[in-house]
Amino acid sequence: MQTVTTVAILGASGYAGQETLDRALSHPELEVVAMGSDSLAGSSASALDVRLNGSLPGFVENDEAAAAGADLIFLCLGNERAASFEPPPGAVVVDLSGAHRLHETELYAQWYGFEHPRPAAVASWSYALPELWPPAGPLVANPGCYATAAILALAPLREAIDPASVVVDAKSGVSGAGRELKASSHAGFVLENVSPYRVGTHQHAPEIAQALGFPVCFVPHLLPVRRGLLVTCYVQPSGPDLRVLLGEAYAGSHVVRVLPEGVSPELGRVQHTDFAELALFDDPATRRAVVVCALDNLGKGAAGQAMQNANLVLGHDETLGLRLAGVLV
Amino acid sequence: MQTVTTVAILGASGYAGQETLDRALSHPELEVVAMGSDSLAGSSASALDVRLNGSLPGFVENDEAAAAGADLIFLCLGNERAASFEPPPGAVVVDLSGAHRLHETELYAQWYGFEHPRPAAVASWSYALPELWPPAGPLVANPGCYATAAILALAPLREAIDPASVVVDAKSGVSGAGRELKASSHAGFVLENVSPYRVGTHQHAPEIAQALGFPVCFVPHLLPVRRGLLVTCYVQPSGPDLRVLLGEAYAGSHVVRVLPEGVSPELGRVQHTDFAELALFDDPATRRAVVVCALDNLGKGAAGQAMQNANLVLGHDETLGLRLAGVLV
Amino acid sequence: MQTVTTVAILGASGYAGQETLDRALSHPELEVVAMGSDSLAGSSASALDVRLNGSLPGFVENDEAAAAGADLIFLCLGNERAASFEPPPGAVVVDLSGAHRLHETELYAQWYGFEHPRPAAVASWSYALPELWPPAGPLVANPGCYATAAILALAPLREAIDPASVVVDAKSGVSGAGRELKASSHAGFVLENVSPYRVGTHQHAPEIAQALGFPVCFVPHLLPVRRGLLVTCYVQPSGPDLRVLLGEAYAGSHVVRVLPEGVSPELGRVQHTDFAELALFDDPATRRAVVVCALDNLGKGAAGQAMQNANLVLGHDETLGLRLAGVLV
Amino acid sequence: MQTVTTVAILGASGYAGQETLDRALSHPELEVVAMGSDSLAGSSASALDVRLNGSLPGFVENDEAAAAGADLIFLCLGNERAASFEPPPGAVVVDLSGAHRLHETELYAQWYGFEHPRPAAVASWSYALPELWPPAGPLVANPGCYATAAILALAPLREAIDPASVVVDAKSGVSGAGRELKASSHAGFVLENVSPYRVGTHQHAPEIAQALGFPVCFVPHLLPVRRGLLVTCYVQPSGPDLRVLLGEAYAGSHVVRVLPEGVSPELGRVQHTDFAELALFDDPATRRAVVVCALDNLGKGAAGQAMQNANLVLGHDETLGLRLAGVLV
Repeated sequence: MQTVTTVAILGASGYAGQETLDRALSHPELEVVAMGSDSLAGSSASALDVRLNGSLPGFVENDEAAAAGADLIFLCLGNERAASFEPPPGAVVVDLSGAHRLHETELYAQWYGFEHPRPAAVASWSYALPELWPPAGPLVANPGCYATAAILALAPLREAIDPASVVVDAKSGVSGAGRELKASSHAGFVLENVSPYRVGTHQHAPEIAQALGFPVCFVPHLLPVRRGLLVTCYVQPSGPDLRVLLGEAYAGSHVVRVLPEGVSPELGRVQHTDFAELALFDDPATRRAVVVCALDNLGKGAAGQAMQNANLVLGHDETLGLRLAGVLV
Repeated sequence: MQTVTTVAILGASGYAGQETLDRALSHPELEVVAMGSDSLAGSSASALDVRLNGSLPGFVENDEAAAAGADLIFLCLGNERAASFEPPPGAVVVDLSGAHRLHETELYAQWYGFEHPRPAAVASWSYALPELWPPAGPLVANPGCYATAAILALAPLREAIDPASVVVDAKSGVSGAGRELKASSHAGFVLENVSPYRVGTHQHAPEIAQALGFPVCFVPHLLPVRRGLLVTCYVQPSGPDLRVLLGEAYAGSHVVRVLPEGVSPELGRVQHTDFAELALFDDPATRRAVVVCALDNLGKGAAGQAMQNANLVLGHDETLGLRLAGVLV
Repeated sequence: MQTVTTVAILGASGYAGQETLDRALSHPELEVVAMGSDSLAGSSASALDVRLNGSLPGFVENDEAAAAGADLIFLCLGNERAASFEPPPGAVVVDLSGAHRLHETELYAQWYGFEHPRPAAVASWSYALPELWPPAGPLVANPGCYATAAILALAPLREAIDPASVVVDAKSGVSGAGRELKASSHAGFVLENVSPYRVGTHQHAPEIAQALGFPVCFVPHLLPVRRGLLVTCYVQPSGPDLRVLLGEAYAGSHVVRVLPEGVSPELGRVQHTDFAELALFDDPATRRAVVVCALDNLGKGAAGQAMQNANLVLGHDETLGLRLAGVLV
Repeated sequence: MQTVTTVAILGASGYAGQETLDRALSHPELEVVAMGSDSLAGSSASALDVRLNGSLPGFVENDEAAAAGADLIFLCLGNERAASFEPPPGAVVVDLSGAHRLHETELYAQWYGFEHPRPAAVASWSYALPELWPPAGPLVANPGCYATAAILALAPLREAIDPASVVVDAKSGVSGAGRELKASSHAGFVLENVSPYRVGTHQHAPEIAQALGFPVCFVPHLLPVRRGLLVTCYVQPSGPDLRVLLGEAYAGSHVVRVLPEGVSPELGRVQHTDFAELALFDDPATRRAVVVCALDNLGKGAAGQAMQNANLVLGHDETLGLRLAGVLV
């Protein structure tokens, strides 16, 4: 007999929360029972989006949503807030923040700007990128958007490239910076502009380094695009055929697609989906290989992957609730 | 007594031609006497822009414009067309195409897709990037837009970096591809998209290699931006302080500006200007340096630099006619 | 016993064709058996989109696709081409072009630029906008994108407004102009721009006039947006409460939504969906009412509505295959 | 003997202030002696833009800038702040806010949300739109951006149209809303979106009504564009030829241009300039005329017009310092 899984979303009114809610509503086995939001607590669901109607619960404080007894909790909170979250016993929790990603918890001070309040607890969470490392338990640290793209592109090639050669040039749409109001998200700054930011200090750099086993030079740029990102990874091959390795890594995936030779990944093609796409190019002049990955930062880079991880923990088909239906979006 | 320099613009109806015309019209010592255009020959100037009025000559065939006896000719033609151009004796000619940039003329077949029709003539043209290599004579090969940015960023550092380490990740607005109609310039493709193109085969790669003395891994990307470009260059330092070298190279320039530490170049800030801006960042984790250059592909990357070169050949102040007035654009 | 409906799409490689294909692939009761395309005939499906795989038939000539014996044919051809199409006996045909919309067939010369080749046949087609006028038979003339929005906004109010007062100011993304390459679709023209076009001569004007029973002043504008449109309709109320009329017209609809008072339609909210949203505002200073409708020109304005119409003819739930799942896109 | 005019800019770090500063720096007869800013007081000029260097004074408090004894003061403050400003004796003051535009000062409560603190003083200010009503004294109320466009389009036609018929549908880039951080200026809202706002309540409506002598139905929309606006005005002609009236009104202007028949105004063409362009279209089906005006909201819609007004008061050529040089931008 099928029983429905109840869901609470904390931080449901941010971009990641809203996208997680969207997937939960499309998921045949989930029922949203609590939505937490500091800014919208006390409001009905339609305060977030006029299309959300009376069948949904209204917004409550995040603490109240956490205590609602849901089987499955999505944490879409800020990093520091999520770091002090205590998982209710028995619940499956998928944390979309960075609070449980770095095993060396002393790194939080440098890269996240706060001392981790519960360092001993981090080991209970598994860093889960389904195609490479499925969740190992009910507490899941969902990878960062840039990190997902860089790791999908590079992890299968680890043994076949020179670690010291790796450069990751990343470009993201503005939703990557969240719904919070800041000068760098003002459309007067974003439109007809592109610029690098947080060079050498972005918190996804140590996450990528942890996953690959070596540091990479990672530089993110902000694009005049609503959502989606693309990373261009430069590597010096040192061993087996990279195309074969990449193809093998994702041969069975319904989510990650290696494109045929000569076809470029396009941010626009993965936008509004939970797909990721990868391509490999050669630069004969410098004997480098270039691996490019495109995905939607709110899809495979956040809510899509969070739902994929939740499905794996719960024993569902990993694509339930994901935006993969049809082929065009 | 001041005598006016007469100007002919060939290919005046393309983006580079139109921008060159704009600067020529702002230049106190130049008079436009002929405008060539295959598509607009026979039309009045207002066919190109409704703001251009009766004081300008109408469009004629490019051959007729070339034969108009102008003192100064700007070639804004396609590469192959420009390659077969025979400069009239005595004229100053600035070629904005790639037809006279590569000294090893046998490279044209591979990178430009045609055998150079006048290979022996290429040596008469000087590749001129004013801040580094001013024109050596009346025939000027104006650098490519991406190449200008990459060379401004890297040439001053040549002796202080490991050549094998250099990666140039470039991002350009759509005007870089010209006014010609093609699928990749259709707004339905460009908007909310970004993708790499011509990986390992772009014709600015050998131009950069020639200028630096070694090949670099160069990957261009198309942005949903009208004009402007930004290159992010990754290098392994091997010698003297890069910041000092960069500062010295452009200390006296009115066109190229090295930004203070911590300030990022922004495509939006140089858009519609003839400025270029540069910044240097460190990535402690990989001990790499990142040099970023932003410029307008139609400004310092084409028409602005062409006018700067023309001014230098003619003995004018190099900034006459350039878009540098005021500070904000 | 459920039997599958076979589908042929003519003009499958244009925007409307591709979107129709997307919905057909999501539709549980449809099977695509033929895809016609002049430009891609002979290519596999992946030539259109790399995500389309071997389970789909390759592209054939449009005539061949028409003759494939499909139960349901979507005509996504140009207007003139569609006008000479002869429906195979027994087939359901939904024409997304304008070829069968105008009952006064002599209007085609003026508004579409060609004499209708089969004027007597037009009467066999029913102009079907499901919420107002469901299909009356197997041959369906699917409304135009702008016309759909203007009619949804105005048709329910016909008896309660002064016909002479009506102004329809329309704004559309670039996909409304199709995938064809033209100067006005070049991203160098579209980005950071907006301008009116075809003032007084757009072919959706007579279509709106036919539906409402009186002419309206209709001016379309091109936006720097990939897809989606918004119409702002200005009317002088003359009778019953407009809000009540509008609410009643769409009370039961799963596709068209009247927003609560004070909430503005947003192109971005309906983009990539098959929803339309409507809102009514008052302008006390002039005692006018303003009715605004937003929809995706390729969704409710083309392929979504075409599928809705096909479902109604075939007796399916009208939302099968439509992009209405979830609430957020 | 030429004496330089000293200038103070209050609110210099907002969009309008920054653009005014840009024009003042290009103006041969002006010298900027004080820049006021609440947010940047105490910082050097480069805090606003890295290109501003040491020859400029640093930012001070707005009150201090007001007291600096400048000959010419530009008020780029918020509406309420500007309303309580007391002009220093002898100074020329151009107020870019709405604080001195409405002669019926009791309207401020309704349209601006505050009681005017100095209602008796408003009569000392002249509402100056140079092509129609040049400044009448040293205190100038500079028109609003939307109002400028609507008035340029409609004022010359006042006697030849039915006042009750007038509809003004306006579309603006995001800089129209200022640099302040708000949800509707967040790029995640602005990109790939368009929506109407403040229908029936925008403060430029009474300003237009005052200038024309009758109310119009005015609806503004927000575009995914950095700067620039376009208004589409619908009118019922009732008298003399509108094209003649429009042509006569701007026959001698260097700033406002009536386009030839059949040419559409384009926001992109006036962006970054101080030009305005106008065109007239007929809609035969409804016998309406459509007058379209495009201008840059920060140029002719704010700083450009402010400088034009200042020039007129000071007896300079009205185009000094304006962005009209060259023909292309």
